Amino acid sequence: MIDLRSDTVTKPSPAMLDAMFHAEVGDDVYKEDPTVNELERRVAELFGMDDALFFPTGSMANQAAIKMHTQPGEQLICDKYAHVYNYEGGGVSFNSGVSCKLLDGSRGMVTATQVEEAINPPDFYHSPLTTLVCLENTTNKGGGACYDWEVVKEIKAVCVKHGLGLHLDGARLWNAIVKTNQDPKEYGELFDTVSVCFSKGMGTPLGTVLAGKNPLMEKAMRVRKVLGGGMRQTGFMAAAALYALDHNMERFNDDHRKATELGLFLEGQTWVKKVEPVETNIVIFEVFDEKAVSAYCAKNDIIISNMGQGKLRLVTHLDYTDAQHEQFMEVMGKFSA
Amino acid sequence: MIDLRSDTVTKPSPAMLDAMFHAEVGDDVYKEDPTVNELERRVAELFGMDDALFFPTGSMANQAAIKMHTQPGEQLICDKYAHVYNYEGGGVSFNSGVSCKLLDGSRGMVTATQVEEAINPPDFYHSPLTTLVCLENTTNKGGGACYDWEVVKEIKAVCVKHGLGLHLDGARLWNAIVKTNQDPKEYGELFDTVSVCFSKGMGTPLGTVLAGKNPLMEKAMRVRKVLGGGMRQTGFMAAAALYALDHNMERFNDDHRKATELGLFLEGQTWVKKVEPVETNIVIFEVFDEKAVSAYCAKNDIIISNMGQGKLRLVTHLDYTDAQHEQFMEVMGKFSA
Amino acid sequence: MIDLRSDTVTKPSPAMLDAMFHAEVGDDVYKEDPTVNELERRVAELFGMDDALFFPTGSMANQAAIKMHTQPGEQLICDKYAHVYNYEGGGVSFNSGVSCKLLDGSRGMVTATQVEEAINPPDFYHSPLTTLVCLENTTNKGGGACYDWEVVKEIKAVCVKHGLGLHLDGARLWNAIVKTNQDPKEYGELFDTVSVCFSKGMGTPLGTVLAGKNPLMEKAMRVRKVLGGGMRQTGFMAAAALYALDHNMERFNDDHRKATELGLFLEGQTWVKKVEPVETNIVIFEVFDEKAVSAYCAKNDIIISNMGQGKLRLVTHLDYTDAQHEQFMEVMGKFSA
Amino acid sequence: MIDLRSDTVTKPSPAMLDAMFHAEVGDDVYKEDPTVNELERRVAELFGMDDALFFPTGSMANQAAIKMHTQPGEQLICDKYAHVYNYEGGGVSFNSGVSCKLLDGSRGMVTATQVEEAINPPDFYHSPLTTLVCLENTTNKGGGACYDWEVVKEIKAVCVKHGLGLHLDGARLWNAIVKTNQDPKEYGELFDTVSVCFSKGMGTPLGTVLAGKNPLMEKAMRVRKVLGGGMRQTGFMAAAALYALDHNMERFNDDHRKATELGLFLEGQTWVKKVEPVETNIVIFEVFDEKAVSAYCAKNDIIISNMGQGKLRLVTHLDYTDAQHEQFMEVMGKFSA
Repeated sequence: MIDLRSDTVTKPSPAMLDAMFHAEVGDDVYKEDPTVNELERRVAELFGMDDALFFPTGSMANQAAIKMHTQPGEQLICDKYAHVYNYEGGGVSFNSGVSCKLLDGSRGMVTATQVEEAINPPDFYHSPLTTLVCLENTTNKGGGACYDWEVVKEIKAVCVKHGLGLHLDGARLWNAIVKTNQDPKEYGELFDTVSVCFSKGMGTPLGTVLAGKNPLMEKAMRVRKVLGGGMRQTGFMAAAALYALDHNMERFNDDHRKATELGLFLEGQTWVKKVEPVETNIVIFEVFDEKAVSAYCAKNDIIISNMGQGKLRLVTHLDYTDAQHEQFMEVMGKFSA
Repeated sequence: MIDLRSDTVTKPSPAMLDAMFHAEVGDDVYKEDPTVNELERRVAELFGMDDALFFPTGSMANQAAIKMHTQPGEQLICDKYAHVYNYEGGGVSFNSGVSCKLLDGSRGMVTATQVEEAINPPDFYHSPLTTLVCLENTTNKGGGACYDWEVVKEIKAVCVKHGLGLHLDGARLWNAIVKTNQDPKEYGELFDTVSVCFSKGMGTPLGTVLAGKNPLMEKAMRVRKVLGGGMRQTGFMAAAALYALDHNMERFNDDHRKATELGLFLEGQTWVKKVEPVETNIVIFEVFDEKAVSAYCAKNDIIISNMGQGKLRLVTHLDYTDAQHEQFMEVMGKFSA
Repeated sequence: MIDLRSDTVTKPSPAMLDAMFHAEVGDDVYKEDPTVNELERRVAELFGMDDALFFPTGSMANQAAIKMHTQPGEQLICDKYAHVYNYEGGGVSFNSGVSCKLLDGSRGMVTATQVEEAINPPDFYHSPLTTLVCLENTTNKGGGACYDWEVVKEIKAVCVKHGLGLHLDGARLWNAIVKTNQDPKEYGELFDTVSVCFSKGMGTPLGTVLAGKNPLMEKAMRVRKVLGGGMRQTGFMAAAALYALDHNMERFNDDHRKATELGLFLEGQTWVKKVEPVETNIVIFEVFDEKAVSAYCAKNDIIISNMGQGKLRLVTHLDYTDAQHEQFMEVMGKFSA
Repeated sequence: MIDLRSDTVTKPSPAMLDAMFHAEVGDDVYKEDPTVNELERRVAELFGMDDALFFPTGSMANQAAIKMHTQPGEQLICDKYAHVYNYEGGGVSFNSGVSCKLLDGSRGMVTATQVEEAINPPDFYHSPLTTLVCLENTTNKGGGACYDWEVVKEIKAVCVKHGLGLHLDGARLWNAIVKTNQDPKEYGELFDTVSVCFSKGMGTPLGTVLAGKNPLMEKAMRVRKVLGGGMRQTGFMAAAALYALDHNMERFNDDHRKATELGLFLEGQTWVKKVEPVETNIVIFEVFDEKAVSAYCAKNDIIISNMGQGKLRLVTHLDYTDAQHEQFMEVMGKFSA
């Protein structure tokens, strides 16, 4: 079985498992889990942030951040493809009573000009008050695209000028950091809050850390509590994240290389209509006969994601081996529509 | 002073005032105001609906309807120009915890195909559950455009097929009804709920009636109460609406004629870049030098709305007299950029 | 028909109607209604507050104030009888996501000690953060009881000490002010926000003004908008309130006198079990045979409120004439259980 | 260190760790984690429910259930000591927009009569609509008290009569089941939803299962998603719960025995004012000099909970060994105030 649906399907390696089950744990509700505390300390430091908090999921970390930044009735600005708008169950409105102004960005990325034009006049009380900008890096629905750092700086300048908060949905932030070879501290310089996921390319079972600035982060414990995210001996999971920080960062390059190779491979196939640019570990491509491709994959024990409207998605990850990589291209190379 | 900003600026005529101040009133919280009861009965009957309820504002009537149709976390579909999304203070998310899927319609109007494509798959629990479609007729930001009734029927068919509710924001529904010469009962055949405003072209001081089907309308009193809309001796205001129903319907044709004439006049002006199609009582036009036009208007005691990005808006109404109409064209005809 | 259910049932007098009829109005959404503006200015000044805003109902004024004071998840402290908890449709939780800590006060009134003991420790994040205290004066369900001003001062000191906001539900504040002969400015000294109703003893058709301090009041327009309370030519209603301020304040003593007389009368009746202390215009009393009393009243065209568990309520008001007063006592004096 | 603060402080035993370490896992967001699926299947079957879902915390399981049962603006009935009202961050109002009617129960337990009297009349739209009753068994703040099953049956009858949902907060349900020697299926007969925690006496690191009836449970996945509780390879945690079901049920009797012994011991101490009845694994007792006792405990490496107002709490659990039990009584027996 070759599973290319998502990088969330990875399972801990034996070494990660070993780290998990030798973790020292405690009751994190009392903030007495040393492994969780260490992970939070380390991520905060890594990103140059004041504080950090461990969450069971990336959705909760994003939703908590949005709640910490806003009041009900306000509006946040994001790309039309944003995960927080599209795939978090309507949580922006459910949890925070906030609406989204959607920008028509490019591959999930927006510009400072777009952001500035989307701000509602603060004294025009008929429209929601704009108070937050949410970016995603890399972009999920945008095919793993990475922001140009100059664009992020310009967006930050707009935020500062208009008094808006700036949150980063870092579901695949490690991919962006490895790809652009950035110092994570640069994120702490521009963003007020950053969520960073450990259960995708990092390969842990679950967990996202939200890192951010004070006094904003002082609200984080209360918000996590009310959403039901205050777990007990969760150091077992934090241990996996600490292991991944030490051992899995460099191997992102391997995921990216394989994705690039898959993109090139697909461009050479007659049954493929178009391949979107590949930047990190996601390959989105359009086919002429979506049903035939899907059926062929299923028959050959290959699982991929259907994005709708003839688009398919491959995501490379830690459990996608070199052997599977060869096999995938061999099998798909024999497909004829 | 010629005020063309909005049809909300009208003041009751002496005859309407007379009707208001001879109204029989009671405590509407106990449903004992005979004039309110009569207005509600009459509007329900007019639109072929099961029940109707009087609200202080159109925003509250729309917001209450949206709440009655939805659960927090769900999503409604509307045009990107929709009043409920843009100009009700973010209420869709604040009051109902609901998000909006925005369609790129034409002049504020959407098609059945657009609606159907925007419905999230009901079993894909990552995305909000789509449960409601909101239309606007005529469209405010769309320049007073009227729906083709065949399009509304097709949208209704999509709603029936997918189990979605259908609400009409009828802030300027009277304009549409007069323009298309429809029987209001046709609205009751297609819509579950319809808000219809009395403080615009109808010329009353305030008030909107929400008419709809049971069992949906059985929730209306509770929702109005919790939003703080349960007033006492409000029959004075209902009396104005009853008077308007009897006396002000026919004169909408006069507003529409004047708007058409204004459109033609503006098309002949060199300082006007473009005039959008005029269908009812709204004229949206683009000018080369917005600041100069605005300054000139102000100097000549003419007030108009600025829509941003070089667009200006005129709205004809009951208090915009023939004399003002002549004067407006005379004064503006002398403007040279 | 003698209607003693509530002081909300009053209808404008001919002179009040005349004032309404001649009011100068404008579009209050643009803040261009001179009569509304004048009412707001005057009430703010009267209570020594920075600003004031007109609302269609007292429920909306209270709910808006609570929203202005709080964030979702927080907790307010009020008496177990409080109108905001019991009779505003669950709005505290619906509109603001806030819970109520209920105090076991005396006749709807609480003490500073009770308030202080009810504050959750701010760093104990499992419990809601306490941020607001709501008082009611006079108390509705407490039988029109008036706060001792020294107690209010002590409560204010607790609020200052713990950083809590202090809101007054002034549905029957005029009764308290007349009864205690206070300068309304004293309220501005202790409370951050005060709602004061015009449709009860003041005799207007509808409307409550929320007066308060900045920067809190700067949020009021937005909150009123999102709740759907931004009306148009509502100066007709504001004119009634202005008339009432000039002419109806002194006559509250008449309501109070009649209520006192009713209390004394009831104490002398064998079918009455107990009469609660009468302080202003409300008389709550317990009878042995609630059904028999209610049936006898109905047969004699007398309407009163049933509070449940054998308790009945009378409320004197502007439309309860001397003749009705005599008649009520004459008719009820003949009742024998 | 003897930690008697809570049964949440337990850490997995080597055997439990071993079961976790060898668990087969998958991506639970796709419902492909076999261990999670097995736990959910087994708990549903155990309680005679239609379905079950695994949550990261008991708070989220309770909050999700309350959301599944209610609409914003409604009211639930619970004891004044209820965890859902007091210790879930104000989540009832934050997540569901719902208010609580608090009953003055006995040791956290309420009667059917109390419940029935607390239901607001459904057609009195000024008060919130009552739609749900939440019980807790055993009661936390009530000192581990267990419901008499006849009382629960009577409460259920009231719920059926008035169309109310019935939810059980089973944070310490295993204690009640072992104590009363009940078949868990009896819970499925009376309750619509039951949360049952594995991280207290069961000794797992984290996790609560919500079991319930359809169609209610069909909403559970969406609600868990929007709250951010949809984790990935969480089978490691589910494996701990499965292990606990097989091995840790019987040992609850040991916790209960120790708690009973602690109660008897404390009753014999002169520095103890009063010991509340001990039914399961919680001992609440009042002392004359709370500060002195706390200081003495701290000096002797004993940690206990302070409930405020002179009350202290001990909770026995899997990691409270026989040796610690002896030592606790020996050390505390030497205390003299």
